[in-house]
Amino acid sequence: MSIDVPSLVAQAREGRPRAVARLISLVEGASPQLREVMAALAPLTGRAYVVGLTGSPGVGKSTSTSALVTAYRKRGKRVGVLAVDPSSPFSGGALLGDRVRMQEHATDPEVFIRSMATRGHLGGLAWSAPQAIRVLDAAGCDVVLVETVGVGQSEVEIAAQADTTMVLLAPGMGDGIQAAKAGILEIGDVYVVNKADRDGADATARELNHMLGLGEARKPGDWRPPIVKTVAAKGEGVDEVVEALEKHYAWMSEHGELTARRLRRASAEIETIALTALRERFGSLHEDSRLAALAGRVTAGETDPYAAADELIATTL
Amino acid sequence: MSIDVPSLVAQAREGRPRAVARLISLVEGASPQLREVMAALAPLTGRAYVVGLTGSPGVGKSTSTSALVTAYRKRGKRVGVLAVDPSSPFSGGALLGDRVRMQEHATDPEVFIRSMATRGHLGGLAWSAPQAIRVLDAAGCDVVLVETVGVGQSEVEIAAQADTTMVLLAPGMGDGIQAAKAGILEIGDVYVVNKADRDGADATARELNHMLGLGEARKPGDWRPPIVKTVAAKGEGVDEVVEALEKHYAWMSEHGELTARRLRRASAEIETIALTALRERFGSLHEDSRLAALAGRVTAGETDPYAAADELIATTL
Repeated sequence: MSIDVPSLVAQAREGRPRAVARLISLVEGASPQLREVMAALAPLTGRAYVVGLTGSPGVGKSTSTSALVTAYRKRGKRVGVLAVDPSSPFSGGALLGDRVRMQEHATDPEVFIRSMATRGHLGGLAWSAPQAIRVLDAAGCDVVLVETVGVGQSEVEIAAQADTTMVLLAPGMGDGIQAAKAGILEIGDVYVVNKADRDGADATARELNHMLGLGEARKPGDWRPPIVKTVAAKGEGVDEVVEALEKHYAWMSEHGELTARRLRRASAEIETIALTALRERFGSLHEDSRLAALAGRVTAGETDPYAAADELIATTL
Repeated sequence: MSIDVPSLVAQAREGRPRAVARLISLVEGASPQLREVMAALAPLTGRAYVVGLTGSPGVGKSTSTSALVTAYRKRGKRVGVLAVDPSSPFSGGALLGDRVRMQEHATDPEVFIRSMATRGHLGGLAWSAPQAIRVLDAAGCDVVLVETVGVGQSEVEIAAQADTTMVLLAPGMGDGIQAAKAGILEIGDVYVVNKADRDGADATARELNHMLGLGEARKPGDWRPPIVKTVAAKGEGVDEVVEALEKHYAWMSEHGELTARRLRRASAEIETIALTALRERFGSLHEDSRLAALAGRVTAGETDPYAAADELIATTL
């Protein structure tokens, strides 16, 4: 059944939730009309400020996202929320729990909430999230919050998708900082120590500050990631988070970083789509493909993988 | 300076350590003669049994690897060791510590030991490890042990590289099992609870057994991953590990799984090489490339990423 894409896009542009949901389903499911949808969305995109939220399980990501939605709504902004579930490549199981905390926004016509699983190969989050962000952008969202659990690659991937990356921590997870430091100290533009009414919040903030300070000296004009303390469940400190995000946005705009990040994002997205198309041509998923035949020759020692790759490209493209 | 590849390969085949080391450097560094090396190695490969060892920091991977080397040497086997360091994509820092425990094998001419960093993009471990494995295989290693820290993607990637994947745990890391379960319960062919002389070893083995048992019922003839307890530092239980590995090898050979795994590995390797070559053609790394120009048109809303990907493929290939 063919869908009337122009009409659907027009409705989404007016902010009709069902049209937005429908469009996300279309781009997520790689429907036959995906390309038509993407083409129709293109001229409507580029306005939304995309904020990535990541952190270990238990730091209060969902509560923080909800509190940020409330704060942006007070400011009259239209808000999109994308809750990304970076499933295992094997199990397909969900890591994100209930979305109960978002319920209070469920009836607000200026808030669009969507959960998204990203299992699958080449890219996961990198593959499906940008398309959903595009839909929310075209639907007139001023801010799109992309929330994901900071496990494995996902924290790195979210940084590649967002204009600003916000890393959440909570007290008593000092070991967590150590374990995750290789990742999170590189990607955060804004750090939030949530549950700051608990013991150890100051220690966590101090430790984080210390670890961030260990990097090389910053040049004048460089962005120094702020650390904001919040009690998201009570809304405490959330205005300060919005302020920190606004400062980062202003800094990026001033220093050409916003454009640079968006160009990098678009490059990566185009490349991922192109490489996926080429993988399909290689027949990666078919047992009787040319690739499978070449693999047989490699395991038999009749050829080497480089020569096989040359042959694959020469005979497929 | 051009290298006499046939002579180097002949020396490696005789088991000369310097030639082996030189060849690994050549394939690791993507030297201009990489293709010549790979072509020369191809007919000599396919004999080695590749065992991947993974586990969280602190479980005793290095000690276990060393103990396995000792056990295989007693059986008269030539052994290769590849200690892979899955560096952060950002920091380039090392995660693997000293290789002191391997020192005792350093003067054994039938043991080849190599550390390898895998920072970089498309693939990391998937990209450089298989080539080094090929060198060790061609050098007449009966067994190649590939050791890597189980963080993020690396544990999944090692499973894709090895004939048999061995997952190490240690007592008192129950939380570790929970945290890692999505990954390790899917990839282990053999489980080892090391430091079994410590409190909690039985509990760890029981918990693991319970979690492995939670999967769907196995069909007759399916492989049931054994759990072996060891004190690697004292060599205790290591013979049982070798026995478990031999059983798994025999089971794989009998059920066609060895061939299937090697074909999958070769397919993935060929595809990675081909896609990397295509990425180079796309000029992914150049700011003035066609890809960068297309990204600019996407961020400006002049085109969408799918149309841009089509154009990239059409104009590049």
